[in-house]
Amino acid sequence: MRAATLRDGKMVVEDLDDLEPGPGQVLVEPIACGICGSDLHTVDHAHDMVATVHAAGVSNFAFDPDKDVVMGHEMSCRVTGLGQGVTGIAEGDEFAAMPYLQTPDGPVVVGYSNRFPGGYSTQMLLSPDALLPIPNGLDPTVAALAEPMAVGLHAVNESSINQDRIALVIGAGPVGLAIIASLAAAGTETIIASDFSATRRRVAEQMGAHQVIDPAAHSIVDAWREAGDGISPPVIYEAVGVPGMIDQIMAESPAHSEIVIAGVCFPSDTFRPSIGIYKHLSLRFVLGWSPQEFAMSLHHLAEGHIDGAKLITGEVPLNDVPQAFADLADPEHHVKILVRPTQ
Amino acid sequence: MRAATLRDGKMVVEDLDDLEPGPGQVLVEPIACGICGSDLHTVDHAHDMVATVHAAGVSNFAFDPDKDVVMGHEMSCRVTGLGQGVTGIAEGDEFAAMPYLQTPDGPVVVGYSNRFPGGYSTQMLLSPDALLPIPNGLDPTVAALAEPMAVGLHAVNESSINQDRIALVIGAGPVGLAIIASLAAAGTETIIASDFSATRRRVAEQMGAHQVIDPAAHSIVDAWREAGDGISPPVIYEAVGVPGMIDQIMAESPAHSEIVIAGVCFPSDTFRPSIGIYKHLSLRFVLGWSPQEFAMSLHHLAEGHIDGAKLITGEVPLNDVPQAFADLADPEHHVKILVRPTQ
Repeated sequence: MRAATLRDGKMVVEDLDDLEPGPGQVLVEPIACGICGSDLHTVDHAHDMVATVHAAGVSNFAFDPDKDVVMGHEMSCRVTGLGQGVTGIAEGDEFAAMPYLQTPDGPVVVGYSNRFPGGYSTQMLLSPDALLPIPNGLDPTVAALAEPMAVGLHAVNESSINQDRIALVIGAGPVGLAIIASLAAAGTETIIASDFSATRRRVAEQMGAHQVIDPAAHSIVDAWREAGDGISPPVIYEAVGVPGMIDQIMAESPAHSEIVIAGVCFPSDTFRPSIGIYKHLSLRFVLGWSPQEFAMSLHHLAEGHIDGAKLITGEVPLNDVPQAFADLADPEHHVKILVRPTQ
Repeated sequence: MRAATLRDGKMVVEDLDDLEPGPGQVLVEPIACGICGSDLHTVDHAHDMVATVHAAGVSNFAFDPDKDVVMGHEMSCRVTGLGQGVTGIAEGDEFAAMPYLQTPDGPVVVGYSNRFPGGYSTQMLLSPDALLPIPNGLDPTVAALAEPMAVGLHAVNESSINQDRIALVIGAGPVGLAIIASLAAAGTETIIASDFSATRRRVAEQMGAHQVIDPAAHSIVDAWREAGDGISPPVIYEAVGVPGMIDQIMAESPAHSEIVIAGVCFPSDTFRPSIGIYKHLSLRFVLGWSPQEFAMSLHHLAEGHIDGAKLITGEVPLNDVPQAFADLADPEHHVKILVRPTQ
């Protein structure tokens, strides 16, 4: 098998030993695997990330940052082998895949494991429960977007958005766009998004934002004031994840706003709790999704409620993964790059 | 009239010109006025506080910190004069008072105004709407606790506490004790409180805490784990308000905890958003109360649902207010000191 491995802070493409499916495991080849912002973070901040994961007591993500990791957790895949006792699945079947493998030592999040490779590879092991049939003739490459779309749906589901509240989405990278798409699929009446990138603002509109703002020129809070009654507090989705954003949003947000923190900020950050107090703000930190949300996002893609193809701005073979990681630093050129490991 | 004035970061007791009630205003003499932690903060951090208030866009608290302020906003009072047009109120009537005065220039929060004195004085002006009759023969000095108890009730009402969740109260100063008392009045089944002070832990038990923890010796999260199923996430009330507390609570709290920030921390603070992300935490900042919550807290005191007398650890005349501010720095000796301006 061949894989793009994270080693000592660098992405290295190399040959590895082939995998064999154990009892109850399914061997697959990824059809497509999206590059996630978390993976970019992990290249630069693997030690910080693992330290945080340990501090938070989250065992599933606790890989050793000094050892190799094959990342990639946004996959569609084709079955190439079946472990003992797996039924109801055949070689050649195609699935959208949750990044999940049950092992004798407990469940593993593939893509953040030293032992089991993620989707930047030609072979993976997954549990049968992790595999969802691709409905309605959906292109299997687009089905790889079910995972990032589920991240957006989860953020929306955890929030207090309703028909009386305007949604403000700060940052139209993949997480922000998934939030916009999920808000739109839920029928949210007013979605206002901001991003410094003209490319991303255009995609935000394609995903369902009713208004887009260049924060260099305009205030999204002014847009909120003009679009609504100026009283009902907005739900603000933070999808940037850099230090200082939370304090800035708290300082600019209207009183009683709910701020959903969906952008992962690994470094320690500074904020003014008293601003939160005087404005009666709430901060809701969100991560991941439930299996139901994953399935619902796959449904939204398959039914055309979310036009996933518009999010895909590039496809690369395994050999080009290191370059793709570098390219994603420039938001003007890319939204979501899919790795096509077997091409 | 006589008042304790905050001037240049010091409390000064002095004579001031008598007040005259304008149209629609009521002249009162405070019977008792509690010293609030916010007032202690204001002595040390008035400029920070006002800067925060301006940053938050809250106009009611926007006094000039370089000018005199007569603080005090936790009052009971006796009517001594009526402005033109005030009906239904007679001289000599006694009330629990919300710190509120309507003026031709708009509403004023008395106690944080350069123009209108708060309760550390022998005379105040209040609006008729601010005055609630003292029910059920409640001692008028105890009625002064309606305001701080309403702060606790508001924190409880804004939280997601229910019969499946354990309440953890960090800090048993006046705000923490008011939260404990309000949780107990609402029938919360398990309330665990922590404070370094043995005195405050004892009062916490008197207010209704089922278990108290000395954080120097034990972890309140361990107590949560032992008291419940170890799964249902707690609601954690932060009632300390010093830098570092929010990060510490986020680091120690179980996944999916709701953290209610009721302690006012004026300085900028440091925290790790990624801890919040990985644990799916929410932070809810709360302040103040509604008139309904004020009335409900007065009812709880009058009906004996909250034993307010146990919170009162000292009474001082106006001349001793500066010393009382100093004394409150030591949590072993005091919970709530009432100023008795006319004694």
